[in-house]
Amino acid sequence: MELLLNHRTIRKYQQKDISQEDLNIIIESGIRASNTGNMQLYSVIVTRDQVNKEKLSPLHFNQPMVKQAPVVLTICLDINRFNKWCDLNSADHGYNNLLWFVTGVIDSMLFAQNICIAAENLGLGICYLGTTIYNAAEIIEVLKLPKGVFPVTTITIGYPDENPEQIDRLNLKGIIHDEVYTDYDEVAIAGLFAYKEELESSRKYVSENNKQNLAQVFTDVRYKKVDNFFFSEKLLKTIRDQGFDV
Amino acid sequence: MELLLNHRTIRKYQQKDISQEDLNIIIESGIRASNTGNMQLYSVIVTRDQVNKEKLSPLHFNQPMVKQAPVVLTICLDINRFNKWCDLNSADHGYNNLLWFVTGVIDSMLFAQNICIAAENLGLGICYLGTTIYNAAEIIEVLKLPKGVFPVTTITIGYPDENPEQIDRLNLKGIIHDEVYTDYDEVAIAGLFAYKEELESSRKYVSENNKQNLAQVFTDVRYKKVDNFFFSEKLLKTIRDQGFDV
Repeated sequence: MELLLNHRTIRKYQQKDISQEDLNIIIESGIRASNTGNMQLYSVIVTRDQVNKEKLSPLHFNQPMVKQAPVVLTICLDINRFNKWCDLNSADHGYNNLLWFVTGVIDSMLFAQNICIAAENLGLGICYLGTTIYNAAEIIEVLKLPKGVFPVTTITIGYPDENPEQIDRLNLKGIIHDEVYTDYDEVAIAGLFAYKEELESSRKYVSENNKQNLAQVFTDVRYKKVDNFFFSEKLLKTIRDQGFDV
Repeated sequence: MELLLNHRTIRKYQQKDISQEDLNIIIESGIRASNTGNMQLYSVIVTRDQVNKEKLSPLHFNQPMVKQAPVVLTICLDINRFNKWCDLNSADHGYNNLLWFVTGVIDSMLFAQNICIAAENLGLGICYLGTTIYNAAEIIEVLKLPKGVFPVTTITIGYPDENPEQIDRLNLKGIIHDEVYTDYDEVAIAGLFAYKEELESSRKYVSENNKQNLAQVFTDVRYKKVDNFFFSEKLLKTIRDQGFDV
């Protein structure tokens, strides 16, 4: 519990390798997570080779963790392996659709999160890279992923070389709804986000970016509408190119 | 680590309530999971009321855990709350697309898995219901989810009233790929799945369902092609109805 409550993302790592034994137990913890029908529709690509890290780095918009971490894990949803088993058994599979794409994302993330918790339990630090689905097409090429395999997220892992402050979260009341969803009026929204707007780091973001408020830093700087729709189109095309009828 | 490695899905619960205090610490553990840009694009609907459980039960194909568990959590991706904050700040959001739908699923599942691990840490047992995305439209109605909010998964939680055997998993070598994806040939597939086909429980499935082999139990009985495509279409329609431009 302590471990979960004290989680911090670690972006700087010591130049110290992770043993294969430790990595195996970490991934073993991952496969113990719940999954749909015990079909295990996921795979993990382990990148230790610096040359491959250099290839992946720009696809994650040059976030320094990719080149710096001893181990980079690309977590993929994988219907290829299961389908091949079906083919071998004259079983007429039909998993190349939206339902099983989403199911695969769900199962991949349970696998991923168990991996992260197991890693932290061994004193390692982790960072998730949400950029994986932005440049899935290029990542597929680098990692030679066949049809039916799709990169969902990337985790960099290593021994921590920093000890950052824990970052803020919304109050629990802002997340929990009893029995039915209670929609937020303007007063509720303003109340929920007020603490965040007042953080020193938030004020800095706003002034550095010459914005009127923190929300505009998100919409005009960090995650812009034009980019969101561009990468959405690209993602859809890549999902189809990987053989999913979406 | 023990906790992760010993995970079992629990489907029978004691008739003993979960205190609000325990539930809060469990959900607090959830919000400590990593999430994209610290935008916290998720909400959780807590169902304790028996009348609401009765409404949800058929939407999960009458799996008995829904009516029997003291607490049912429906984990939702939620861009509604964030968008309302943007609206209040004249910030032009653009998150109603595939990129952010998938991002929301990812973040919701990290939230969900931390919740499950925290619950198990308190001696509770959990079961994931993958059926949530099959009947998302009806669940949206029961839980009164506004546009921008989408149910991703459901977790039933309670004190265990059973102690099941741990179920099988593929060998780690079947999941891990070093540096690049190594595709499976027929020999590799047959070798990976052989142990599973030989399990007593698998043989029983095959004979009870009059199938030739275990793979056909999956494709012809458990997750049939015609159902997969039917529920895929339904899922796509529901995603669009909830305001996502997919």
